[in-house]
Amino acid sequence: MARKPLTELALIARTQKLAGRQQSAAVRLGIGDDCAILVPPRGHEILVTTDFSLEGRHFRRDWHTAASAGHRTLARGLSDLAAMGATPVAAFLSMGLPAAFDPVWVDEFLAGLLALAEAHKVPLAGGDTAESPGKHILADIVLVGSAPAGRALRRSGARAGDRLFCSGALGGAAAQLDSMVLRPFPTEGPQAFPEPRLRVGQTLLRGGVATACIDLSDGLSTDLDHLCAASNVHAELHKTWIPVHAGATFDQALHGGEDYELLFAAPSEVKVPRSIGGVPLTQVGRLTEAVAGEARVLLDGLPLDPGGHEHFRL
Amino acid sequence: MARKPLTELALIARTQKLAGRQQSAAVRLGIGDDCAILVPPRGHEILVTTDFSLEGRHFRRDWHTAASAGHRTLARGLSDLAAMGATPVAAFLSMGLPAAFDPVWVDEFLAGLLALAEAHKVPLAGGDTAESPGKHILADIVLVGSAPAGRALRRSGARAGDRLFCSGALGGAAAQLDSMVLRPFPTEGPQAFPEPRLRVGQTLLRGGVATACIDLSDGLSTDLDHLCAASNVHAELHKTWIPVHAGATFDQALHGGEDYELLFAAPSEVKVPRSIGGVPLTQVGRLTEAVAGEARVLLDGLPLDPGGHEHFRL
Repeated sequence: MARKPLTELALIARTQKLAGRQQSAAVRLGIGDDCAILVPPRGHEILVTTDFSLEGRHFRRDWHTAASAGHRTLARGLSDLAAMGATPVAAFLSMGLPAAFDPVWVDEFLAGLLALAEAHKVPLAGGDTAESPGKHILADIVLVGSAPAGRALRRSGARAGDRLFCSGALGGAAAQLDSMVLRPFPTEGPQAFPEPRLRVGQTLLRGGVATACIDLSDGLSTDLDHLCAASNVHAELHKTWIPVHAGATFDQALHGGEDYELLFAAPSEVKVPRSIGGVPLTQVGRLTEAVAGEARVLLDGLPLDPGGHEHFRL
Repeated sequence: MARKPLTELALIARTQKLAGRQQSAAVRLGIGDDCAILVPPRGHEILVTTDFSLEGRHFRRDWHTAASAGHRTLARGLSDLAAMGATPVAAFLSMGLPAAFDPVWVDEFLAGLLALAEAHKVPLAGGDTAESPGKHILADIVLVGSAPAGRALRRSGARAGDRLFCSGALGGAAAQLDSMVLRPFPTEGPQAFPEPRLRVGQTLLRGGVATACIDLSDGLSTDLDHLCAASNVHAELHKTWIPVHAGATFDQALHGGEDYELLFAAPSEVKVPRSIGGVPLTQVGRLTEAVAGEARVLLDGLPLDPGGHEHFRL
């Protein structure tokens, strides 16, 4: 029996129905007007991040399940909020679908996205839909969050002498991606269903633990380079300190992207918990004075170049 | 001499350089961290809208200049803010470009977008870039705005007895689009460079003039249908009252989209100015009680079906 192609109007209806499960006092007006209206907590600043999830660039329909693609789309945005210690206020999804697209795939994509939204109590408050001009699925996710005024964790606050930590274990997403060539459509794991570390980021902010933070979307070597550049410091990593995900190589832990763990700096006098919400925090190195002409990042004393993904984000 | 293809990193550098012209106290942290940080005015709510601008759907590279495509991308989002009487706080641009894309086109696209941003003092505070998975240019624009708490102009506030007005003249964008088959790349005009009616919307809000408002992106017949549905009212239009743009047909004024004028309802006891900032306001009809089983919109007493574009937005 032929399936009825999903019209864009039907996509809206499905999204509204599914999104309606999430209610939030911060969303005064959701889907259905020219704009959504949000009311963030008093004394908080607004954080905004936007991330493409394009088929063939950020996910593959022959490797990722639809639920995984949906989960990953939202996880990318939530991870950016996590990196700044923010609390999500609302998500907005723009989605372009090829003509006469399989409605079951879309339902599963939305279900994957909305399951993660529900786990983190993030209402879907709007977005846009269109017919994709080509054969690829196009998604763009916008996350709006809030953080106490002046307290959001930036990349730029680290100082020489700070210790450098990461959450979780690294390289798992890259290792699982490699395995998907032969065994596609995993239903769990760090590549298919990465966990944005919102609670870790929020706890670091609340406790005044971190001086700077970034999420590991592009890989440790690349994101550490970004943090060092923003804070004008250099860094020393220790090979044996870096927590390598089970099944991953050290190279994947160092350069593999999409783990969505957090990398943060903490002053030497501040106590860093061993774990937050069951997620271990591990010291991987320390920050040093920036010296002109010297390598920005050293691994056991040898220069380490950024080797991770480059998403080239604004 | 072959032009060097524009890398995504170069796109960011260009955007940052161009965007750097706009400074704003409301943007505490712009491009370059995991999120942007915004500080809207005290006592204001946050408005968010997101709109795709996809090549082949929302603009054509063989009809629109790059500057027009960029202008139109931002205008779509600004018009949504205008429809709610909001003031822009910041814009976010996600952009996907085919591999080895012409950098001159991109520069002109950004110049067109940023010229409109400058005219309305809207800083570009972030976004995302990626390589387009196909041959089409992909853009998604996010606008964040603010409005005094509880005062944003919704679609849903109109009441039976209210008069119905529109700004400007209608049908010009559709008429110009038709002409572009033979005479592409116009450098002015309502299709190529539509003017978002921010000042009109803000003045209607401040003066307590409008009970409901929507922007005419999909055409008068369609957007009026949306407003009536949201407000649970019916409407009567008068053919001779509708301001038809020079060069446009009445059908284009009724059903053509993308004029980005405002359609609003005003109670009979409220004085509506003849113009705001040089933009005329014209009564086109009035709202009536919703009667089950009767046509939602009448034109000179005859039922009028929505016949404009359907962007199928969330």
